[in-house]
Amino acid sequence: MLKGRGLGLPALPHTIRQLLFAPLPDAHVPVKIHGWVKSVRRQKNVAFAVVSDGSHDKGIQAVFPNASQARSLTNGTSVRLEGRLLASPGKGQDKELRVDSVEVLGRSDPEKYPIQKKELTVEYLREHCHLRPRTDAVASMLWLRHIVSNSIRGFFENNGFCYVHTPIITANDCEGAGETFRIAPDSTLAPVHSGDAAPKPSEFFGHPAYLTVSSQLHLEALAASISRVYTLSPCFRAERSQTNRHLAEFWMLEAEWAFTQTVHDVCNVVEAAIKQVLDDAADKSEGSNPWSERAAKLQAEIATRDWPRITYANAVEELASFQQATRAFHFEPAWGLPLQSEHERWLAENLAKGPVFVTDYPAELKPFYMRLNDDGKTVACFDLLMPGLGELVGGSLREEREDHLSNAMRKHGLQTDQYDWYLDLRRYGSAPHGGFGLGFERLISWVGGIENIRECIAMPRWAGRMLL
Amino acid sequence: MLKGRGLGLPALPHTIRQLLFAPLPDAHVPVKIHGWVKSVRRQKNVAFAVVSDGSHDKGIQAVFPNASQARSLTNGTSVRLEGRLLASPGKGQDKELRVDSVEVLGRSDPEKYPIQKKELTVEYLREHCHLRPRTDAVASMLWLRHIVSNSIRGFFENNGFCYVHTPIITANDCEGAGETFRIAPDSTLAPVHSGDAAPKPSEFFGHPAYLTVSSQLHLEALAASISRVYTLSPCFRAERSQTNRHLAEFWMLEAEWAFTQTVHDVCNVVEAAIKQVLDDAADKSEGSNPWSERAAKLQAEIATRDWPRITYANAVEELASFQQATRAFHFEPAWGLPLQSEHERWLAENLAKGPVFVTDYPAELKPFYMRLNDDGKTVACFDLLMPGLGELVGGSLREEREDHLSNAMRKHGLQTDQYDWYLDLRRYGSAPHGGFGLGFERLISWVGGIENIRECIAMPRWAGRMLL
Repeated sequence: MLKGRGLGLPALPHTIRQLLFAPLPDAHVPVKIHGWVKSVRRQKNVAFAVVSDGSHDKGIQAVFPNASQARSLTNGTSVRLEGRLLASPGKGQDKELRVDSVEVLGRSDPEKYPIQKKELTVEYLREHCHLRPRTDAVASMLWLRHIVSNSIRGFFENNGFCYVHTPIITANDCEGAGETFRIAPDSTLAPVHSGDAAPKPSEFFGHPAYLTVSSQLHLEALAASISRVYTLSPCFRAERSQTNRHLAEFWMLEAEWAFTQTVHDVCNVVEAAIKQVLDDAADKSEGSNPWSERAAKLQAEIATRDWPRITYANAVEELASFQQATRAFHFEPAWGLPLQSEHERWLAENLAKGPVFVTDYPAELKPFYMRLNDDGKTVACFDLLMPGLGELVGGSLREEREDHLSNAMRKHGLQTDQYDWYLDLRRYGSAPHGGFGLGFERLISWVGGIENIRECIAMPRWAGRMLL
Repeated sequence: MLKGRGLGLPALPHTIRQLLFAPLPDAHVPVKIHGWVKSVRRQKNVAFAVVSDGSHDKGIQAVFPNASQARSLTNGTSVRLEGRLLASPGKGQDKELRVDSVEVLGRSDPEKYPIQKKELTVEYLREHCHLRPRTDAVASMLWLRHIVSNSIRGFFENNGFCYVHTPIITANDCEGAGETFRIAPDSTLAPVHSGDAAPKPSEFFGHPAYLTVSSQLHLEALAASISRVYTLSPCFRAERSQTNRHLAEFWMLEAEWAFTQTVHDVCNVVEAAIKQVLDDAADKSEGSNPWSERAAKLQAEIATRDWPRITYANAVEELASFQQATRAFHFEPAWGLPLQSEHERWLAENLAKGPVFVTDYPAELKPFYMRLNDDGKTVACFDLLMPGLGELVGGSLREEREDHLSNAMRKHGLQTDQYDWYLDLRRYGSAPHGGFGLGFERLISWVGGIENIRECIAMPRWAGRMLL
């Protein structure tokens, strides 16, 4: 009765990408293609359909020698086609499928299908986010995330980093900034409706639990033993901002490493990582991608040069003198005040004309864990500002001196006993270390030229909106 | 004032692994090593220390020609050593560092250091999970996660899958099974204390939000346009089980693909993926790892043969006849009842003597979304059972027929209107598809021979315990 099964039969059919990139088979070899109909064009005797399985941005052209074969095909229908791959006489494709037989796997009512050929607004598509990957734009964004993830992984692999998973549920609110989401088992915690009988309070973990806003503190613990770690992890902010660069749930690339001693070394790692991403996104060796042209343009503009660095103090001077001359800013730039979006944009777009690292902000403007500089008032940190986007990356040296760290906690109004474990890292073999955090959707937005980060993630969540 | 900085200076110092695997430099070339002291041995004139930066499981032996150089070194101290790399006369190492100068970066009080050389219990280490990666066992587990993640990525990359990120915050409770965590912004939701004034109810998203228990439904939406997707994603269960294979927060590998038509094809993909993981974990080309021997043993035992499959019905027959002969089981095996742990173990350990796929369970024992077989009572699903572990993977074909799916939802007591989007996937170009979910920590436990999955994740969370 127990019987082994061979893997002889290929468990997975060929994708359209695999067929398009393989050598053309003999004209008599039958191939099968599976996918969704993207468009149909009927002539008197012959019909054409573009069929996509999402593996390749252009799909494949199927030619039906007998137009009646394509009778039941409408947009969105899923099909299995058998036929032969032939060199294509058409422009923009080198292979097409000459169809012998058609099997409809799943119909799609052309009257009701929500993803019509016509132009659909981003708002409409967000309301149909379970179907919007059927659009070329969202499908190619998903592949861009894939490519960029691979690129990042390769970069860190080559530099000896360990890919780790840090907790999502945490007892800490890392930055003391922004509102956090709190969690509890469904049965013991619910919004309070007046009139409800009050259930017995119960915390699943014995104390309050939150969704992480950053993996950094946990990464520091890991870097304190395996030196170099990174993660690409979901993060959460219960902010009610409705901008084109905020989400309630987003992914963050964070890296942390020991034995680094200057903020410029941290910047160098960031710069090299992002240049690697541009290289890989611009790579056309596996066919052109919708984003490869933009990535190649960015690469030509900025990847061949070193990205400038400017201290916060100098940046404020530059801003102030421009303001004095032009009164162009709504917010007055001054030492000790945060840089506003308009300031950040000006620094990247006008002053640096490209990416720029702004370093050494006043300690009060930054979280408690950043390393105090010798001047006693600034910290060894940076923000990387990009033209058209603003802040893409933030990072710093971390305060590795126990006494300085305790002081900073008190100044920031934190309870040091809650962070005893974090202080332990400074008590037992503390080491100079640093790291950074990069908003993954912002990176996708920048590389892909996608305006709103709600279009940079499969199923976006923001205040008031969470589908599926 | 704006000035570019070259990447000329290497931004990252060399890791011990890099130095150990590079060709031996000339004896006069000074090298720097950073790391934590793991042990010190003092002789009259000379001293030895093992120093590790976590990049390599054995660290490196440092030789101090003058014992006084090692005076302030204790376990856990972080140091920068300068010296020369020499071929080592010692056993089990081919290079050692002859130290010229020592810089202590961070002391570690030998009286208080929580990670003493002596044997520490797993319970003690869980209470110090911010420091336990300093132990060899936990550090090597973290690298095993890294290796296995890479292996999985490579497997899916080679098979045309897209790596995607599915939502963590969701409106759904995927399997209708197990308790879920509910979330809300900290300020609007809190455990109800009797006597508290009832705050106004407010849901951040306008409706209840939960932590995901599985990415599957979301993956199905993506597979319905880009065909092949996978994710390695955190999942959450608010279960109070205190077993050695349950966590409140764990990572799950889930894959989903379109145009697959038999459950055996899904099993074939799972089997190939796990064999790939064994290959990569057993690979010693970059030096032996603590787990490579075990992985090689598993590989020799099971990776060279096809893993058997047995239907649930046949499995129950086998169990029943063994039970009749021996009365060995506490739970009576019978068709329609779930397989108990003792049954699963017997099937893998005694009947199959290795991994075994049990397929085609009764529909009532499985979630609503599994594809109904033609017999009208079983579903096209499988559990992969491993000796010593039990269930490692579960998967199935998914019900792609709208009417069957609606029926199954009603039978499982689900509100079909809540799953309208999921039904849409069956209304517009539905395609036969399937997939699986694999508990990542269970895989690590199995490959690494680590008994409890609390030791298979950096910072474990379970009912009553959530540190950091």
